[in-house]
Amino acid sequence: MTNPSCELDPNEDKIREECGVFGIFGLENAASLTALGLHALQHRGQEACGIAAYDGQQFRTERHLGLVGDSFTGDDPSQRLPGNISIGHVRYSTAGQTVLRNVQPLFSELHTGGFALAHNGHITNAYTLREQLVKKGAIFQSTSDTEVVIHLLARAKEGEFIDRLVSAIRQVDGGYAFVGMTEKLLIGVRDRFGIRPLLIGRIGNSYVLASETCAFDMIEAEFIREVEPGEVVVINEDGIRSFTAYPNASSRPCIFEFVYFARPDSIVGGKSVYEVRKRMGQRLAEETPADVDVIIPVPDSGVPAALGFSQATGIPFELGIIRNHYVGRTFIQPTQQIRDMGVKLKHSANRSMIEGKRVLLVDDSIVRGTTSTKIVRMIKAAGAKEVHFRSASPPIKYPDHYGIDMPTKDKLIAANYSLEEMTSMLEVDSLGFLSVEGLYWAMGEKFREEDAPQYTDHCFTGCYPTPLIDRDRQLLGGNQLSFLVEVA
Amino acid sequence: MTNPSCELDPNEDKIREECGVFGIFGLENAASLTALGLHALQHRGQEACGIAAYDGQQFRTERHLGLVGDSFTGDDPSQRLPGNISIGHVRYSTAGQTVLRNVQPLFSELHTGGFALAHNGHITNAYTLREQLVKKGAIFQSTSDTEVVIHLLARAKEGEFIDRLVSAIRQVDGGYAFVGMTEKLLIGVRDRFGIRPLLIGRIGNSYVLASETCAFDMIEAEFIREVEPGEVVVINEDGIRSFTAYPNASSRPCIFEFVYFARPDSIVGGKSVYEVRKRMGQRLAEETPADVDVIIPVPDSGVPAALGFSQATGIPFELGIIRNHYVGRTFIQPTQQIRDMGVKLKHSANRSMIEGKRVLLVDDSIVRGTTSTKIVRMIKAAGAKEVHFRSASPPIKYPDHYGIDMPTKDKLIAANYSLEEMTSMLEVDSLGFLSVEGLYWAMGEKFREEDAPQYTDHCFTGCYPTPLIDRDRQLLGGNQLSFLVEVA
Amino acid sequence: MTNPSCELDPNEDKIREECGVFGIFGLENAASLTALGLHALQHRGQEACGIAAYDGQQFRTERHLGLVGDSFTGDDPSQRLPGNISIGHVRYSTAGQTVLRNVQPLFSELHTGGFALAHNGHITNAYTLREQLVKKGAIFQSTSDTEVVIHLLARAKEGEFIDRLVSAIRQVDGGYAFVGMTEKLLIGVRDRFGIRPLLIGRIGNSYVLASETCAFDMIEAEFIREVEPGEVVVINEDGIRSFTAYPNASSRPCIFEFVYFARPDSIVGGKSVYEVRKRMGQRLAEETPADVDVIIPVPDSGVPAALGFSQATGIPFELGIIRNHYVGRTFIQPTQQIRDMGVKLKHSANRSMIEGKRVLLVDDSIVRGTTSTKIVRMIKAAGAKEVHFRSASPPIKYPDHYGIDMPTKDKLIAANYSLEEMTSMLEVDSLGFLSVEGLYWAMGEKFREEDAPQYTDHCFTGCYPTPLIDRDRQLLGGNQLSFLVEVA
Amino acid sequence: MTNPSCELDPNEDKIREECGVFGIFGLENAASLTALGLHALQHRGQEACGIAAYDGQQFRTERHLGLVGDSFTGDDPSQRLPGNISIGHVRYSTAGQTVLRNVQPLFSELHTGGFALAHNGHITNAYTLREQLVKKGAIFQSTSDTEVVIHLLARAKEGEFIDRLVSAIRQVDGGYAFVGMTEKLLIGVRDRFGIRPLLIGRIGNSYVLASETCAFDMIEAEFIREVEPGEVVVINEDGIRSFTAYPNASSRPCIFEFVYFARPDSIVGGKSVYEVRKRMGQRLAEETPADVDVIIPVPDSGVPAALGFSQATGIPFELGIIRNHYVGRTFIQPTQQIRDMGVKLKHSANRSMIEGKRVLLVDDSIVRGTTSTKIVRMIKAAGAKEVHFRSASPPIKYPDHYGIDMPTKDKLIAANYSLEEMTSMLEVDSLGFLSVEGLYWAMGEKFREEDAPQYTDHCFTGCYPTPLIDRDRQLLGGNQLSFLVEVA
Repeated sequence: MTNPSCELDPNEDKIREECGVFGIFGLENAASLTALGLHALQHRGQEACGIAAYDGQQFRTERHLGLVGDSFTGDDPSQRLPGNISIGHVRYSTAGQTVLRNVQPLFSELHTGGFALAHNGHITNAYTLREQLVKKGAIFQSTSDTEVVIHLLARAKEGEFIDRLVSAIRQVDGGYAFVGMTEKLLIGVRDRFGIRPLLIGRIGNSYVLASETCAFDMIEAEFIREVEPGEVVVINEDGIRSFTAYPNASSRPCIFEFVYFARPDSIVGGKSVYEVRKRMGQRLAEETPADVDVIIPVPDSGVPAALGFSQATGIPFELGIIRNHYVGRTFIQPTQQIRDMGVKLKHSANRSMIEGKRVLLVDDSIVRGTTSTKIVRMIKAAGAKEVHFRSASPPIKYPDHYGIDMPTKDKLIAANYSLEEMTSMLEVDSLGFLSVEGLYWAMGEKFREEDAPQYTDHCFTGCYPTPLIDRDRQLLGGNQLSFLVEVA
Repeated sequence: MTNPSCELDPNEDKIREECGVFGIFGLENAASLTALGLHALQHRGQEACGIAAYDGQQFRTERHLGLVGDSFTGDDPSQRLPGNISIGHVRYSTAGQTVLRNVQPLFSELHTGGFALAHNGHITNAYTLREQLVKKGAIFQSTSDTEVVIHLLARAKEGEFIDRLVSAIRQVDGGYAFVGMTEKLLIGVRDRFGIRPLLIGRIGNSYVLASETCAFDMIEAEFIREVEPGEVVVINEDGIRSFTAYPNASSRPCIFEFVYFARPDSIVGGKSVYEVRKRMGQRLAEETPADVDVIIPVPDSGVPAALGFSQATGIPFELGIIRNHYVGRTFIQPTQQIRDMGVKLKHSANRSMIEGKRVLLVDDSIVRGTTSTKIVRMIKAAGAKEVHFRSASPPIKYPDHYGIDMPTKDKLIAANYSLEEMTSMLEVDSLGFLSVEGLYWAMGEKFREEDAPQYTDHCFTGCYPTPLIDRDRQLLGGNQLSFLVEVA
Repeated sequence: MTNPSCELDPNEDKIREECGVFGIFGLENAASLTALGLHALQHRGQEACGIAAYDGQQFRTERHLGLVGDSFTGDDPSQRLPGNISIGHVRYSTAGQTVLRNVQPLFSELHTGGFALAHNGHITNAYTLREQLVKKGAIFQSTSDTEVVIHLLARAKEGEFIDRLVSAIRQVDGGYAFVGMTEKLLIGVRDRFGIRPLLIGRIGNSYVLASETCAFDMIEAEFIREVEPGEVVVINEDGIRSFTAYPNASSRPCIFEFVYFARPDSIVGGKSVYEVRKRMGQRLAEETPADVDVIIPVPDSGVPAALGFSQATGIPFELGIIRNHYVGRTFIQPTQQIRDMGVKLKHSANRSMIEGKRVLLVDDSIVRGTTSTKIVRMIKAAGAKEVHFRSASPPIKYPDHYGIDMPTKDKLIAANYSLEEMTSMLEVDSLGFLSVEGLYWAMGEKFREEDAPQYTDHCFTGCYPTPLIDRDRQLLGGNQLSFLVEVA
Repeated sequence: MTNPSCELDPNEDKIREECGVFGIFGLENAASLTALGLHALQHRGQEACGIAAYDGQQFRTERHLGLVGDSFTGDDPSQRLPGNISIGHVRYSTAGQTVLRNVQPLFSELHTGGFALAHNGHITNAYTLREQLVKKGAIFQSTSDTEVVIHLLARAKEGEFIDRLVSAIRQVDGGYAFVGMTEKLLIGVRDRFGIRPLLIGRIGNSYVLASETCAFDMIEAEFIREVEPGEVVVINEDGIRSFTAYPNASSRPCIFEFVYFARPDSIVGGKSVYEVRKRMGQRLAEETPADVDVIIPVPDSGVPAALGFSQATGIPFELGIIRNHYVGRTFIQPTQQIRDMGVKLKHSANRSMIEGKRVLLVDDSIVRGTTSTKIVRMIKAAGAKEVHFRSASPPIKYPDHYGIDMPTKDKLIAANYSLEEMTSMLEVDSLGFLSVEGLYWAMGEKFREEDAPQYTDHCFTGCYPTPLIDRDRQLLGGNQLSFLVEVA
């Protein structure tokens, strides 16, 4: 009669955004607003955070491992980081190398003055460029691909600062959104396809840059527009100027912002993320219906699609999995004896909604499938008569190279197994994925334009928008740029 | 076009449980299982936690301020706290006096040997007893009312240990559940009305005591039965013995366990808490219907009732309020300038589900009403055409004296204002509460037995099950027992 | 040609004082002055420290493991501990059981009001009394022998507070100095032989109590007089009152205050400690002369005696052993490989003063002899032609029972070996100790009165001033009073 | 009758060495030996410390603010920093900018492989070189002048690694000792005048580099020879190779190593530092005799000179000032009320050696004179009949530019006042300094060669060995190279 539960966090088997960025120009206590904006972007990166500010005389930076809310506590951060221009960064990182010197914003003193930079995304030719720069005597202070941009800028020969910046930007490939600052300017840059998001907001006559609208909501800034693909925006007290880094840019934002990354209350590309996710569930109900008694979301990211499925079918939506909100990061490591007892720290099944019922589990996506299997077992142990599983996005078959953290291809279940095999591996009575067409329908598109897809969707389709120079040279990945380890 | 949001945490305006208790006898690594059980009970107290264990030679205790998952980290706790008998405690406390010497389990060396004790609830004659004991030369080491029990036990004259314990228990009044341990025994005690919960579980031939079934689920223990009102259970390797401390005991458990305290997946008094809460929403829909377009729960405690209301009426349930899970305990204190900008750290409105709609907000209860008002304003700022509010429990009009932390009576909105006044204060188009009859219906009762109510419900009815000796003597409350402050 | 050095701290082979106490009445910011006084007494105990203060409304205590200067840092302590009455304590403790609940001052709320107590020394019938008290239902909160006094006071039946206190004091045996406080009084108590020191000082019209005059020097208090053996002094705004706890008291202070404990600039019993130690060296030169080229003190406690020896003989005094002041408490644990390389962290030989010379090492005492041997080897490795060793106090042959921490008798080299054996064990060319008569001469006494010695000198003579009740009952020692271990 | 004492630490008014360096090649657990060597050099810098090691695959660094003994604690450091090649650094720094990114060793990945560098001293054309490098696109990661060397090395064009290194070294001016490491080499470099010290030691077939012989003593390494002025030594498994960076180098080591910096048991330039200091006192007694009763050293640096003075004159040497060894770094900040009471934390006068006597205070040097005055007042308050003061080095009149931290010229008392004025300002009965000739005599020199002085002695003579390029360009000093502040 116990409520069975699940040892692992469903979120442990998610792909992850690598960063969120924020910048503000022209408001007193800019660093405090940056801290608040970063807090709203916390879901984009929980490993580290940092803020830079300039007060007319000195740049100051404060960088921490950990959450914004644990790092910028107590007194107003703008007392330590005064000034009316500030940028900030939240970072997710895989392991080990999250040492402080890799935490952004990075700062350097160039011939043209001080420059701070924060970056979301990944530069696909970073290693190649770095190798060339080191040969010329450049000394790198981090293992971050972001630093390549600063060295290119430092060595840019001709013209005004903006000319140098555009010249540097043109040398980098990939998916990225930069927020930078000098003594006088706030700068935003988006890659030529707009793969990673960057938006412009306004408070009075002051401008704000952020990865998502929820950061504007936090500080009651008004959303103005997105930075265009390939655009460089430069903000000072005279307003916004726009420069074109890539004349032939075209829009192709990452569709995973809608599937998983963005907060449900954010507006991305003019669309409510929550509504798009509900439409995914609605379409899923049409494409792969299920004859069940109850619909249970895998918390928390499966909730909107599960509601969409429920409302489309009339089958009741219930909270069949209860999440323990108090799990610390470093909880006890149970011994094998205890592990064998079926201990579970993060979730448990709500037996009263499951026992004797045909259950449909809805999640936003399936990555490795390991956690899905554990959840299915937990639901069965709670007495479900049948368990069906639906993914509100298509099968994930291809790795990312633009700043998303995900397992290698051999770990992606859908890249290696058929639907039948996966049904068996997940131990479910039926399994279904949303189709790519269904995904585009949920986005409000009539169809996917095969020649020039409206969204960056390579994880589902294998269709990469840019060349992958470092990968093609079979070089080491971005996390192995250095052979230095900082022990403490 | 921004998503308005709300400065305060709805949870800040909740009443609070004061504690959770756990005990285990006869399993290796007992302290590790206690840590896991306390983790499952974390929602009952987040201020402090502690574990005691005995290994046949020495008692050991480890007590911390903070969460279980932050306190019992890294290596297996049973390496520091060896033994196969262990008890634990999680504690919520109002302020200041959460110093370590008040954190439980309390330990003392009696003439009969070592004794450790953990307590959920409140002793209504603690101050009176303490005063008598101090006059006789007793020296108190804490400001906790729990310690009174230990002194009564230390001074009990006649007979075996159990006789002494029963003799001590009989002198205390109030609502309480004790878990205690000696070198040879695990002990559970419940007050004569069973106001505070205490349950018995089993793993193989070993026994477990806990405040809620979710602690049994965590370690895959089987739920056996509740400790009876006024019962003393004594567990050793021979099994369970039962003693009666109060011959005339009768069952009257606290109804707030169902309304708010217990985890939704717990089974209390044989009932699924989740189902009872859905029935509260269902009955609420009958008692105070609302002509609206969308039902939005106040997260997280309003969810089951909102689902019940939605399923009863067919009006769609939507996540119209998004919660930021990453709020640290000591986040930045915004300056007035920033506060005036409408900053909100914990929740924001999901405009796409609100704008232009008639919205019904459902919460489990209304205490002071201050947070409810802020949420209503946030929903209105997100463009709601109308905002209606429903409380899935009756108006809270009377203070508690059995271990629940809640505001004084002058702060309880329903104790001081009429429905019309509250409707106006909350700035809503309509306001409704569940009736006391409706609450009993949701519990599965035909009616409330006025002479001997089935549940302790004084917060709604003013009907207290026991005399309130300390209060009647107009003595200081439990939190002011000492005039010592420990600074560090 | 290297400078050889020594792995171990000479101070590791010293006997140790267990505590220092301090109290002040009638000055604003009393806790800040207490912190300063404790800082001056830091040499009497480095394991823990604590301060209590009363501001007319509340007692406050702050207790720490560690040094005064690391614990009471930053802002003025009296902001956290306001009031014009305060007591404090520094503590040395052997091991393990230095948990916070044992750190003094201890506080308790008695029928007569709040009472805080700090203690230097040891109660020789503590265990016997504790056993009796527990039988009567007393609950102990610490494993400190000090707490016995509080329980005796709490249970004292008749009369005014002072009568109760005197009644309690009369039941305890041993060597002790207490400093206590109530809401209205500062209290000082010294055992019937004045074994442990306690002095009275004055700042304006306010009074101060402390273990040594150096604490008065720190805050520019004027030294008034010693508390008499068996005297209870009670200080309030009307001044000092004196009570006699033991009518037949007689003076017999611990001679080890002169040999090692007291700071050299303190005045004890009207004598300059520095001068007494120089006289020990002077007499040592007469009793056991040495034909050497250079006199080298074992730092730091051997310095005054070495200077006395040098001035008496004209043989040059040189710093032949250099001490590294920066040794942290938890320095790296060298592996055996490194240990075998002869690593030494704390001292090294100054070869230029040693090589080719006949060296005399002078130390204040020899306890186990282990460190002495290591120092001798270091001096030899630095090229000394001969090494002679002198102890400025007599052979230590008997254990203490009055609050001094020292090895058990089987570890005391002089209790187990003859002079010849010790000379061989220390690997020296000659070895000498000051005689007991010489020690009394250095104190300014004509001779030791055998029937009623002027000083407590049992470590040298075996002549204990009081009965040793706990020892004689062969009970467990003071550090094993409890079978509870606090893990964290 | 109290013992007066002194509020300030005499050491607060000392000039300070900026660093100590250490390196080792060819021994297992090299990092552990580095930690021990740094511990022996701790007196050269207490603000920060760091170690780098290479294990054949990866460089690892560990850098801390604080003491070696507090930073490299617990387990063997070589477990975290494996490998048989390692370098380390201890650093003193004036203020604020001791952020972790400035702590050495610095590491960078050059085209030729990894390179780590630790530096004692100051580069007198660092700012000028940095400005040129930034113009060429170099990005600096620290505000340390050391980093200039790495950039010069990274950009050196021709030849083997050593050629590049020598080419880089030749561009820098000043007083410096570098210890560096690559994957295969341990490198030591000393400036063309050998201003800063660097020595070679040996353990078996392995080599060690260190700033002072006391680091060799610590690990029982044998002292081999000093690195020659202008020499580059390169150590690998084949032994030592020597390169000449400056053909016209000549020896002129900093005389302040003898006066104050070096540990008394170190051998510098073949001389015992302790003996040299005693000779300073001996000569001082001849040059400026004093008719006094007692000689008291200002602890601890005045001790050898005071002994020399005492032995030359027969006037007794006494410890008249007692130092409190337990002063924490961040002790309480006394309020003005308490400060006015004459509180003193670090020293106190030993009245019994002072009262009624004519006292001679001997210190190693006088910098600002502020602390000297406070000490004089303390001695007078203890009842001295007369107080005389002697400095065992000549008047300090000129600032340093080679890595010594000292006040600006307007703060140097001897640069601004006559002997009579200083006598009055220090409130002494007589004042005397050692002459420059006397200082050279104490060093064993017949006379100072005016054209090419044997020692760098500009602080006394104004005679700088090198051009001062940055100063002459009136540029900002080394601590203001950056306009970035790292807040945390």
